Amino acid sequence: LASEPRAAAAPSPCLAPGQWEGRWVQYDHGTGRNSRAAVSYDAPNQRLRVLQQHKRHTPCQRYFEFIYLYQSRVLFQIDQKTKECAKLPLSQAWDPYDVPDNSTFEDQYTVGGPGDSVEVQEWSDRKPARQHERWVGVYTLKDCYPVLETYTLNTSVTTSTRFYDLRLGISDPQVFTPPPTCGTARPRPLNHARC
Amino acid sequence: LASEPRAAAAPSPCLAPGQWEGRWVQYDHGTGRNSRAAVSYDAPNQRLRVLQQHKRHTPCQRYFEFIYLYQSRVLFQIDQKTKECAKLPLSQAWDPYDVPDNSTFEDQYTVGGPGDSVEVQEWSDRKPARQHERWVGVYTLKDCYPVLETYTLNTSVTTSTRFYDLRLGISDPQVFTPPPTCGTARPRPLNHARC
Repeated sequence: LASEPRAAAAPSPCLAPGQWEGRWVQYDHGTGRNSRAAVSYDAPNQRLRVLQQHKRHTPCQRYFEFIYLYQSRVLFQIDQKTKECAKLPLSQAWDPYDVPDNSTFEDQYTVGGPGDSVEVQEWSDRKPARQHERWVGVYTLKDCYPVLETYTLNTSVTTSTRFYDLRLGISDPQVFTPPPTCGTARPRPLNHARC
Repeated sequence: LASEPRAAAAPSPCLAPGQWEGRWVQYDHGTGRNSRAAVSYDAPNQRLRVLQQHKRHTPCQRYFEFIYLYQSRVLFQIDQKTKECAKLPLSQAWDPYDVPDNSTFEDQYTVGGPGDSVEVQEWSDRKPARQHERWVGVYTLKDCYPVLETYTLNTSVTTSTRFYDLRLGISDPQVFTPPPTCGTARPRPLNHARC
């Protein structure tokens, strides 16, 4: 049999940086909430540290630091003010911020204005037999930094994460070490509201 | 009475370009659909032309051109293939892609990776007495091009629009002139599915 005609070669998935620091805004479509955080990302060691940022005056809201240690399957949740700590089982598998090898190339475009923009590529896990994708990732063409990730369940977006202020590497590896208060951590999640 | 102490002066809203061409992806959270389009934007004349783009094989889907003429309060919907045309009343008021004078400054950050990024500012219509904003706009620091706009109703995002490949000006003003088939346009919207 003759081989099928193929479309012009699509770009190959890029290789995202394995360690970076930056910020994100995560929009949870279930709760309608935007949460901002400073993030340290360490793919080789499968660790993530998320420091919630509070810019608005919200009296009863507690703000947490989260330390995800995927290799140990443990999540530490720490009250930023009181340092109260919860040690929780981490059941999800490690899911790096990268473009998997088998991703589908969707589009390439510039974000910003003429002469002041960044070139990005859009990737998804769409397969020919399936109309809808579950994951869409936008990554910079140069150096493959994450810009946007969205996850969809049953045709409705569940979370979207916008990345910014990214810097290569981890400036302080100690951020992945829980504070002493986690030595006597409770095994139940801390409540988000204080009052 | 002494004047209240004020926080450090926040940036002033920037002045967005009045005419541009580019593309967008609009996510409708109600339907769970992403729609891509080539867009011509003409603020001085309050006109918008949206050419839906189809990159996937979707047999029964029709693709339209939309010409919004806000000053005439008319919307033309044109089938890209058959040129069938509907002329519809346009009840919404013109809402430019810009940062209104009374907007609240939310944040400033870079999108992209180190050495290859674009600096943006985030604005909203949040007021001190109100926890949730209805509009959030992300615009480039340089020249004030739109990057992202989201609209929220009752704490849940209704649409988000990501802008890209933006160029200053309108290269062909004829795109705002409906085709001859619109001379005998029907007054009812065309269906989105053909079969």
